[in-house]
Amino acid sequence: MPLVESCGPGDEVMKATIERATLLKGLSHVQSVVERRNTIPILSNVLIEATAEGALRLMATDLDLQINESVAAAVDQPGATTVSAHTLFDIARKLPEGAQVSLTAADGRMTIVAGRARFSLGTLPRDDFPVIAEGELPTQFEMPAEALKQIIDKTRFAISTEETRYYLNGIFLHVSEDGGSQPVLKAAATDGHRLARVTLPRPDGAENMPDVIVPRKCVAELRKLLDEVDGSVGVSLSGTKIRFDLGKAILTSKLIDGTFPDYSRVIPTGNDKILKLDPSAFMEGVDRVSTIATEKTRAVKMALDRDKITLSVTSPENGTAAEEVPGEYVAAPFEIGFNSRYLMDILGQIDGDLVEVHLADAAAPTLIRENDKAPALYVLMPMRV
Amino acid sequence: MPLVESCGPGDEVMKATIERATLLKGLSHVQSVVERRNTIPILSNVLIEATAEGALRLMATDLDLQINESVAAAVDQPGATTVSAHTLFDIARKLPEGAQVSLTAADGRMTIVAGRARFSLGTLPRDDFPVIAEGELPTQFEMPAEALKQIIDKTRFAISTEETRYYLNGIFLHVSEDGGSQPVLKAAATDGHRLARVTLPRPDGAENMPDVIVPRKCVAELRKLLDEVDGSVGVSLSGTKIRFDLGKAILTSKLIDGTFPDYSRVIPTGNDKILKLDPSAFMEGVDRVSTIATEKTRAVKMALDRDKITLSVTSPENGTAAEEVPGEYVAAPFEIGFNSRYLMDILGQIDGDLVEVHLADAAAPTLIRENDKAPALYVLMPMRV
Repeated sequence: MPLVESCGPGDEVMKATIERATLLKGLSHVQSVVERRNTIPILSNVLIEATAEGALRLMATDLDLQINESVAAAVDQPGATTVSAHTLFDIARKLPEGAQVSLTAADGRMTIVAGRARFSLGTLPRDDFPVIAEGELPTQFEMPAEALKQIIDKTRFAISTEETRYYLNGIFLHVSEDGGSQPVLKAAATDGHRLARVTLPRPDGAENMPDVIVPRKCVAELRKLLDEVDGSVGVSLSGTKIRFDLGKAILTSKLIDGTFPDYSRVIPTGNDKILKLDPSAFMEGVDRVSTIATEKTRAVKMALDRDKITLSVTSPENGTAAEEVPGEYVAAPFEIGFNSRYLMDILGQIDGDLVEVHLADAAAPTLIRENDKAPALYVLMPMRV
Repeated sequence: MPLVESCGPGDEVMKATIERATLLKGLSHVQSVVERRNTIPILSNVLIEATAEGALRLMATDLDLQINESVAAAVDQPGATTVSAHTLFDIARKLPEGAQVSLTAADGRMTIVAGRARFSLGTLPRDDFPVIAEGELPTQFEMPAEALKQIIDKTRFAISTEETRYYLNGIFLHVSEDGGSQPVLKAAATDGHRLARVTLPRPDGAENMPDVIVPRKCVAELRKLLDEVDGSVGVSLSGTKIRFDLGKAILTSKLIDGTFPDYSRVIPTGNDKILKLDPSAFMEGVDRVSTIATEKTRAVKMALDRDKITLSVTSPENGTAAEEVPGEYVAAPFEIGFNSRYLMDILGQIDGDLVEVHLADAAAPTLIRENDKAPALYVLMPMRV
């Protein structure tokens, strides 16, 4: 059937058949980039391109973040169009397992047929679909997927959600020589109350990398995709764009145009009161005593005494709670308060069975880490209690 | 330790020890009766009574619904007090598995100790705790837990949530002779758009039962408790109160003071266009085509032709969807529309592999049931499409 002949100028035609499971998986990745509400209609759509090589290229964007994924398909008529991403995803989700899905675009509509079901959706021209111009991405390196996961998992909880502090709404990546020793790549996130930093060996190719801030949404989408990636991920970036090449999927994001604060100044180096304890027992204790805390006052008090830490919370409304947690501590006794939620966020990141808490006094930033070899390090500001 | 001697008048003392798992299970039942926000402080509390017989009686109320549950405990000092239900539940939830929990009340506070953790909560006097006066409950009968589950599962989705139609905010229970044949107990719920009714043999003792409307919240709590009950449930009621005796738990509720409409008039008896089809294939087809429907227009159109049913949805915004569903139909062809969500709610209740749809015309109430022996029957109003 020579579909091409029947086309006037500007018509978008394509015809392909794809397995429901393959289509669903591809769409599940791209649709989460698409915002639920859009003032520009085409931003609700996914660009679908059937290639002569037997693939469907799926693409979605919110103008700041773009995803591009290729999935295997039987292509009868190469071509491209755009159609509502969430509607097509919902259709694919509800089709029976094992269904073969035929996608045909012509005359401003896409017809989706599977079994006895038939759908017709309005399309918008592929030429109107906005594409993020990557420009030159001079810094290029490879990173193990596991290392990227580690960076994200150990820092993302500290990303600020305050929109006015837009320069904190992402993970800061930069390379450093750290006093002439082994060069490193550092990833940091902070919301002003707590800071998380991961330090890894600098990948080959990252020597002249500019300092960049990767936005929260890109971090979230990247993390989801990493669950399906083994091996390594290609990272390419300039001062304004970053691209992650994950095999079948490519994620491209604008970077946050701002200056991340010089966070190294808030990392304490001289805290000499060292507390060592089991992070999970500590965390469970904090969780229990904070049952009493209210939304307003999330503060938990730590009273440090020789090898004895007493956690407590006092709430005028609810009552009091106290729990003793075993720990190793020999410095002078004192008391300090923390936001219990922030403290638990950090303790939840400690993998081993020992955590070091480096304290100075009740008002000074506190350093938390597994040990001095651990790639991750956390700083937490105390609260007055 | 003779605690009693140290008590002045009005002091509430008690001391008991209980397994964390036992306490947690008991509290999980009672705390869900307690509303999150209360203008009367004591309504946030659970009444805890340690009895000389070695049990904790837990009681909670929202003034309309009251739950009473007994759990095994080691009682050192019988007595009673009231304490925040949600806080105590959260504490029990966070205590380590296997912990022994000691509860001590004295001097307006309850102390909870388990392992190294210690909590102190403010109490309110047990004498201030409101108790629903059951009064006489002259109608008393037993019902298998399974029958009660069936009544609830097959009707509750049709309960109205419109507060102005308070007399529809529950399940209507009444007994009937149904034309002199076997006496029955009927349970019905409707929101004006759909009706669900279950008919069961009348239990012994329900002969003179008044017509009652059991409120939605009582239905929900009862259903949760039924999951843990085998055997039978004792039901006692008057025209204003109902009590469910579930072994260790007793649920008492006020009934809705209103008149349930004479629903039997809307159950069609002369619908002569009979459609028979597989409820799950039907439901999946409705679900698929309604992908296209918007929140505003949930209508799905059914075009009935000889042994062929075509489901379709047309949305000006999203597009069109159609699916053919196999079915047995020999009457005159016609078209009818239904709210897809309501239709799926009903189809989800059909257990067998065949459902009967009794139609009259595009504007008339439609009857849906598994067959004429099935205890459950549904009526659905059509929509204009």
